[in-house]
Amino acid sequence: MSFNTFGHLFRVTTFGESHGPAIGCVVDGCPPGLRFTVDEVQAALDRRRPGQSRFTTQRREPDQVRVISGTMDHPEGGLVTTGTPIGLLIENVDQRSKDYADIAGSYRPGHADVTYDLKYGLRDHRGGGRSSARETAMRVAAGAIAAKVLPGVTVRAALTRIGEIEIDRARWDWAQVSENPFFCPDPETVPVWTDYLDGIRKRGSSVGAVIEVVAEGVPAGLGAPIYGKLDADLAAAFMSINAVKGVEIGEGFNAARLTGEENADEMRTGNDGRPYFLSNHAGGILGGISSGEPVVARFAVKPTSSILTPRRTVDKFGTEEDLITKGRHDPCVGIRAVPVGEAMMLCVLADHLLRHRGQVGTTPVWPFQRG
Amino acid sequence: MSFNTFGHLFRVTTFGESHGPAIGCVVDGCPPGLRFTVDEVQAALDRRRPGQSRFTTQRREPDQVRVISGTMDHPEGGLVTTGTPIGLLIENVDQRSKDYADIAGSYRPGHADVTYDLKYGLRDHRGGGRSSARETAMRVAAGAIAAKVLPGVTVRAALTRIGEIEIDRARWDWAQVSENPFFCPDPETVPVWTDYLDGIRKRGSSVGAVIEVVAEGVPAGLGAPIYGKLDADLAAAFMSINAVKGVEIGEGFNAARLTGEENADEMRTGNDGRPYFLSNHAGGILGGISSGEPVVARFAVKPTSSILTPRRTVDKFGTEEDLITKGRHDPCVGIRAVPVGEAMMLCVLADHLLRHRGQVGTTPVWPFQRG
Amino acid sequence: MSFNTFGHLFRVTTFGESHGPAIGCVVDGCPPGLRFTVDEVQAALDRRRPGQSRFTTQRREPDQVRVISGTMDHPEGGLVTTGTPIGLLIENVDQRSKDYADIAGSYRPGHADVTYDLKYGLRDHRGGGRSSARETAMRVAAGAIAAKVLPGVTVRAALTRIGEIEIDRARWDWAQVSENPFFCPDPETVPVWTDYLDGIRKRGSSVGAVIEVVAEGVPAGLGAPIYGKLDADLAAAFMSINAVKGVEIGEGFNAARLTGEENADEMRTGNDGRPYFLSNHAGGILGGISSGEPVVARFAVKPTSSILTPRRTVDKFGTEEDLITKGRHDPCVGIRAVPVGEAMMLCVLADHLLRHRGQVGTTPVWPFQRG
Amino acid sequence: MSFNTFGHLFRVTTFGESHGPAIGCVVDGCPPGLRFTVDEVQAALDRRRPGQSRFTTQRREPDQVRVISGTMDHPEGGLVTTGTPIGLLIENVDQRSKDYADIAGSYRPGHADVTYDLKYGLRDHRGGGRSSARETAMRVAAGAIAAKVLPGVTVRAALTRIGEIEIDRARWDWAQVSENPFFCPDPETVPVWTDYLDGIRKRGSSVGAVIEVVAEGVPAGLGAPIYGKLDADLAAAFMSINAVKGVEIGEGFNAARLTGEENADEMRTGNDGRPYFLSNHAGGILGGISSGEPVVARFAVKPTSSILTPRRTVDKFGTEEDLITKGRHDPCVGIRAVPVGEAMMLCVLADHLLRHRGQVGTTPVWPFQRG
Repeated sequence: MSFNTFGHLFRVTTFGESHGPAIGCVVDGCPPGLRFTVDEVQAALDRRRPGQSRFTTQRREPDQVRVISGTMDHPEGGLVTTGTPIGLLIENVDQRSKDYADIAGSYRPGHADVTYDLKYGLRDHRGGGRSSARETAMRVAAGAIAAKVLPGVTVRAALTRIGEIEIDRARWDWAQVSENPFFCPDPETVPVWTDYLDGIRKRGSSVGAVIEVVAEGVPAGLGAPIYGKLDADLAAAFMSINAVKGVEIGEGFNAARLTGEENADEMRTGNDGRPYFLSNHAGGILGGISSGEPVVARFAVKPTSSILTPRRTVDKFGTEEDLITKGRHDPCVGIRAVPVGEAMMLCVLADHLLRHRGQVGTTPVWPFQRG
Repeated sequence: MSFNTFGHLFRVTTFGESHGPAIGCVVDGCPPGLRFTVDEVQAALDRRRPGQSRFTTQRREPDQVRVISGTMDHPEGGLVTTGTPIGLLIENVDQRSKDYADIAGSYRPGHADVTYDLKYGLRDHRGGGRSSARETAMRVAAGAIAAKVLPGVTVRAALTRIGEIEIDRARWDWAQVSENPFFCPDPETVPVWTDYLDGIRKRGSSVGAVIEVVAEGVPAGLGAPIYGKLDADLAAAFMSINAVKGVEIGEGFNAARLTGEENADEMRTGNDGRPYFLSNHAGGILGGISSGEPVVARFAVKPTSSILTPRRTVDKFGTEEDLITKGRHDPCVGIRAVPVGEAMMLCVLADHLLRHRGQVGTTPVWPFQRG
Repeated sequence: MSFNTFGHLFRVTTFGESHGPAIGCVVDGCPPGLRFTVDEVQAALDRRRPGQSRFTTQRREPDQVRVISGTMDHPEGGLVTTGTPIGLLIENVDQRSKDYADIAGSYRPGHADVTYDLKYGLRDHRGGGRSSARETAMRVAAGAIAAKVLPGVTVRAALTRIGEIEIDRARWDWAQVSENPFFCPDPETVPVWTDYLDGIRKRGSSVGAVIEVVAEGVPAGLGAPIYGKLDADLAAAFMSINAVKGVEIGEGFNAARLTGEENADEMRTGNDGRPYFLSNHAGGILGGISSGEPVVARFAVKPTSSILTPRRTVDKFGTEEDLITKGRHDPCVGIRAVPVGEAMMLCVLADHLLRHRGQVGTTPVWPFQRG
Repeated sequence: MSFNTFGHLFRVTTFGESHGPAIGCVVDGCPPGLRFTVDEVQAALDRRRPGQSRFTTQRREPDQVRVISGTMDHPEGGLVTTGTPIGLLIENVDQRSKDYADIAGSYRPGHADVTYDLKYGLRDHRGGGRSSARETAMRVAAGAIAAKVLPGVTVRAALTRIGEIEIDRARWDWAQVSENPFFCPDPETVPVWTDYLDGIRKRGSSVGAVIEVVAEGVPAGLGAPIYGKLDADLAAAFMSINAVKGVEIGEGFNAARLTGEENADEMRTGNDGRPYFLSNHAGGILGGISSGEPVVARFAVKPTSSILTPRRTVDKFGTEEDLITKGRHDPCVGIRAVPVGEAMMLCVLADHLLRHRGQVGTTPVWPFQRG
C-alpha cells in the first residue's frame, strides 16, 4: 500500500501539513556507504524554496533541513549513510494560519478541500493542510539523497510552456535554466514570460505550465514487465505532484499522430560493439525498460487554483457563496514544480536501479558473442 | 513490489508469454459473495479479441477462459466469489512461432526486444514473448471481475483519434461505439477512418491513436494523499499498457494553457444539500481523490512498431541489418487498447474502493449539519 | 518491501538510532476522526521507559513524545486524527556515546554488531545504533494510536517466566501486572523473581524471559488465507522485537504433544444463536482467521547479551580479544518487552481490522438463517 | 498486501482449492538465466505427495506439474528462466467431494470451517477448500525454483518429535531422513514412532509434531532492520503453514531459561581472517541478519483436526451436533510438513538474497583492513 510512501526498495515516506509544526520524510532502503552533506540537501531545497522571485508565493520558509537518523559523520567530512532509514525534518516557521480562518469551512474551487471533506469527514483547512504543495519540499530533500544512488546519472528539468507561450526548442540551452526565475532553457522566451506572468500576477490570476525532465546516463535495463515498468512508475510519480494533469514519455501524445515509420528509433552498432539509436522518439524506454538513451518525460501543471477573481462555491454546510482565495500564492505553480520533477525522476530511477540489482544482480553479459 | 502485479487490495497478477502454452492471471482480494458468469468474462474478452476486422491482427485466438479457483457454483446459476484468489487461464492455440524464427536474434525497432536482452541477457523472442499485447487479454478478464466490485459504476472507453484524424466531440454518441470496428463514438468519422486506415494497412504501415476512458457513478472519496492518489494510480495503469506514451486526466495537457479562472470547476448546492460542480475540467479528481464527477482519462498509443517498411537495426551480435517485421499485426494497435483501457479503469477503481473501505470504513457523514 | 515499516493498511515506519539526535515514527493509514491525547501516548511510553526500577537499564530518557502531523486540535480537547500520516518524534537526551568509544570496532557477542558490519560494511556502534531496543519506544507510541482503531478490544501482556522460574498460572491475576516492576500476574512469584534477578544483576549477568499477550474482544473474521494469516503476521511482529527467539499461538509447541481429541476446541450454540467454543487451544485463530475467542500469543526473549563476564570475541580487523560490555543494561530485557508486545499486538490487530474492512466490507450476515 | 502472496522480490502467489479443478502458483521476480528441469520440481513435489505410506492421507494425487510461462527450452536441455513470471499448474484428479457432502454446513472442530464462514459468509466446504494443506504443494514447487537462486545453500528438514516422543539429537544423521516415512534423522526412533503412530492411526486419532529446518551455506548479511528481519520473515513463513502453532529460531523458547553467559556465541578469527563462532545458540541470525552460521528454525504442528472420535460442534445454522470427520486424513500432518518447511526456508532465503542485492549490491569489503 502506498498512502504516503513511494518507491519499493528506495522508499520515501513523507508526513506533515502546510501549517503544522513541521514536515518530514523517511528515506528507507538507501544503500550504505554513500556520502552526502546537509548543504547538498539544503541546496536542492533552496531551488524549490518559495519567495525567491515575485513569481512564486511570498511565504518565507527557510526550509532548514535536519538529518535525524540513518547517517554517521564521515571522518573526512559530511555524512555517510549506514543503510538504516534516513529521517529528515523541516520545521514550519512562516505559517499564517489566520489567513485561512474565514474560509475554514469553504471549498476553494480547484483545491482538494471538498474531496478531503468528502473522504475523511474533516480536514486541516490551514493552507491546504496535507494537500499543500509544501509537502513537495520533502520530495526534493529525498531526491538529493537519491542522486547519490545514481553516480553518472544527470537529471535536469526545465519549464517549456507557461500558458499560451511555449519555448523554442531550437534555442534550448541547459545552462540558461539557472539564470532566470522560470527554469527556462530558452533565453529569448524569458522576457516574454516575464511580461506575460506579470500581467497574470497583477490581475490576481494564474496560469498552467509544462515541465520537461531529462535523465542522461541512465543504464540500460532499468524497469520490468508488466506492472513494474519504468514509465508506469514515472507516470505515477509525476501525476502525484500537486496540480499535475498529464504525463508524457518521449513523443507522448504526439506519438498518436505518427506512423510506424516516423516513430521507429532505428539502431546501428557503435565502435564498442553495442547498439545505439539514431533517434529517441521512445524517450529512452522500450517495453517499460530503459534503453540507455536519455529518459525524457513531460508533465502538465494546471493553473494555481487560488485566484483573486471571485468564484462560485459552497461551504461544508451547503451554503452557496462567492469566494476569493486570499493568502500568498504562486501565479504559476508550475515554476516550483521544476525541481520537484527532477526529484521524482531521481527517486524513481534510484528505486529502479536497486530493484534491477535485486532482480538481475549485475548487468548480464551483452552484447552477445558469436560462437 | 510489482513486477507483474497491480493493485493493492484488489490485486491482479498476470503471467504468460505470447507463444507459450497459456496465459493466466490471479485476481486476489476480490470480496466474497459477488456473482458472475464465465460468459460475462468471455464477452469482455471477445471485445478485445484479435481478428475481428481487417484492422486488427489476424491471429485467431478463441481466448476461451477457464476459471480455476476462487469461486463456487451459485445455486441459482453462474459462479459466486468466495474471497479466495480467482485463477483464470487461457490456453494459447494459434501461435505461429516459426514466423519469428529468422528474426530470433534481431531487434525490431520500437519493440522491447533490445531492452529485454539488455536487462535479462536472454528473452523469449516468439511474438514478443512477455512484452506482447497478448498479456492484455488477462487484464480484460480481470476487469470483468472488477466490474462486479463496482455496482452503480459505468466504465466506457472510445477511440478519439487515429493518426492525424480526430473525432468531432460534438457528435459524441456512446451508442455508436459498439457499432463499428474502431470503438468510435462519432459516426461521421467512421468512414473517414476506414479509408485512412485501409491506406495505412495496405502499405504495411501503422499509426497511433488516442483513447478516452470515462467512469460514471464513481463515489466521491476514492483515492488518498500523497502517493495513493487515484490519478497517480490511473496514470501508472494506463502507462503500463503496451505502446502507451502519454496519459491525461480531465483537461490534461490543455490545462497548461488555461488560466485559473478558466480551469476552476465552480460549485453550487443541489436540492439534496450536496454540492455539485458546474464543470469538470478536473476530470473528477481533486487532490488525488474522486469528487463524484465522472472520472475522465485519456491515453496515447504509439503506432504499431511492426511495419513492412525496412528499418535499420542490429541483432544481438551487433550485426547491422535492415529489418521488415513479418507476422500478423495491427495497423493501429490503439483499437484493441480500448477494452484494455476500460479494464484498467475498472481494476484501479475496484482497488481504490476497497482501499477506501479499509481506510475510512463507511463514507463519513456529509454534508455537515449546522449546529 | 518492509525494511523499517510494518503493517499494510495501518502502517508504522520507524527511524532513528539509539544515540542519534532523535527517534521517530510515521503512522500511516490511521482512519480519520479518532480522538486521542498526547498524554495517552506518553502514558504508554512511560510503561516501557527505562530506569524505573533497578531491574531495567539506568539510562534516563524522559521519552517526551511530540506529535508532528496528522491531527488537529479537537474542539472538546485533545487531538483528532485527520486520516493523514501521523508523525511522532522523541528527542534523545541521555546518550552516553563515550561509553562505547573503546569498543567501537569490537563485536559484542550476541549483539548485531558483527552482522551489521557484515551486511553494510559500517555501522553506528553507539549503543547498538539502529539495532538498539530504543527503537521499540516508537512501537509503543504507535500502539497507543492503534488502540484507538480497536474500540472494544483489550490487549494485555504479562511476564510468565524469568530464567528458570515460571509463574503459577492458577494464580494469574491481571490486576497484579501493574503492581510490580516485572509485569508479573502472579503475586507470589514477585518476591521470588526479585531475589533471583537481584542475584543475576549483582553478578553482572542476565537472563531470558517469556511474555504472554492476550487480546480480548477481537472480532471474528480478522486475517486471511494464505499469506495474510493473522497468526503469521503476529509471529513476524513478535519475532521482530529485539532478542525474541520464539513465538507461540495458543497451545504453541505444546500442541505437538497433544492428540486430536485433546486439542479440539469443541463448539456449542449460545443463546444468541452464535457458536461458542468450549476451550481455546487454538489461541483464538483458526486457519489464520480470528474466531472471536481471545487471541493468545507468547514469545521468548533471550538473555541480554551485554554482561560483565568477559567473553571471547574479535574486532572488525580480526583481532581476538576478551570483551566486557560496559554501559547501562537490563539484567532481563524481557521485562521491558511486555509493553512492546502489547503494542505489536495492537498494531497487527488494527492493520487486520482495516484489511478486513477493505476485503469484506461489513461482516457478512451470520449465523445463517435456515430456509 | 499479502492475502495469497509471500515474498517481496522473489514473490510466490498461490491459488486453488482442494477440490477445485486445479491448484497453481506464480513465481515472480525469479532472476533470469537459471536452469532447472520439470523433473526437479516434480521430485520435490513427490516428497510431499500424499499416499506414500500408511501414515499419510490416502488421497492419490499424481501432482503432475506443468510449467506455463517464464521459461524457455535451454539448448542443452531442461528449461531456463527468462526473468518473467513462472506459472505452475497442477490439475486436481482425485477429489472425492462427495465425502464432504453431508458435512457441508458443519464446522469441523480445529478446522477453519467456522472462521471462513465468519469472515466470508460462505466457503468452499469440499476438503477444506482453500484452507486445505493441498495448497502447500505449490509452495513445494516454488521452493524447487527458489533453490536455483541459492547456489551453495543446502536446506534440509527433519521431524524431531511426534506427540510425546522426541528423537535423540545425539544420533542425528541427515542421511537417515530419506530412509523412513517420517523424515526422521534418528534411526532408533523410527521403529518407536512406527508403533506409536500405528496406534494413533488405528484408533482414528491424530497427534502433533515438531519439524526442524536447517540452512547451511547461507551468506552473511541477509535480512535487515527492523521489520525486514530474516527471522521475522521466517516466523511468518512457517506460521503460515497449515496447523503450525509455534516457531523458534536457534535456542528458541529455551533461550528464556539461559543466562547471558550460557547464550553468548563467542567468536574467534579463522585462518582466513574472518570471524567464526564457537557456538550457534542464535540459530545463525543476529539482529535479524544472517551471520554466516547455519540458520536453524523449528516449528510445531498441531494434531490433525480430522479424527474419528465424535466431537461436539455446531453447523452454520446453529444446530448442535456430534461430528466424526470422515474422508482420508493424515494421522500426523506434521510428516508432510517437512518438505513444506524446507520450501518455505528456500523461498524466504531466495527473497532475502535478492533483497540484499537490491539494498547493498555486492557484499561490502570485509573484514576491514587496518590502516
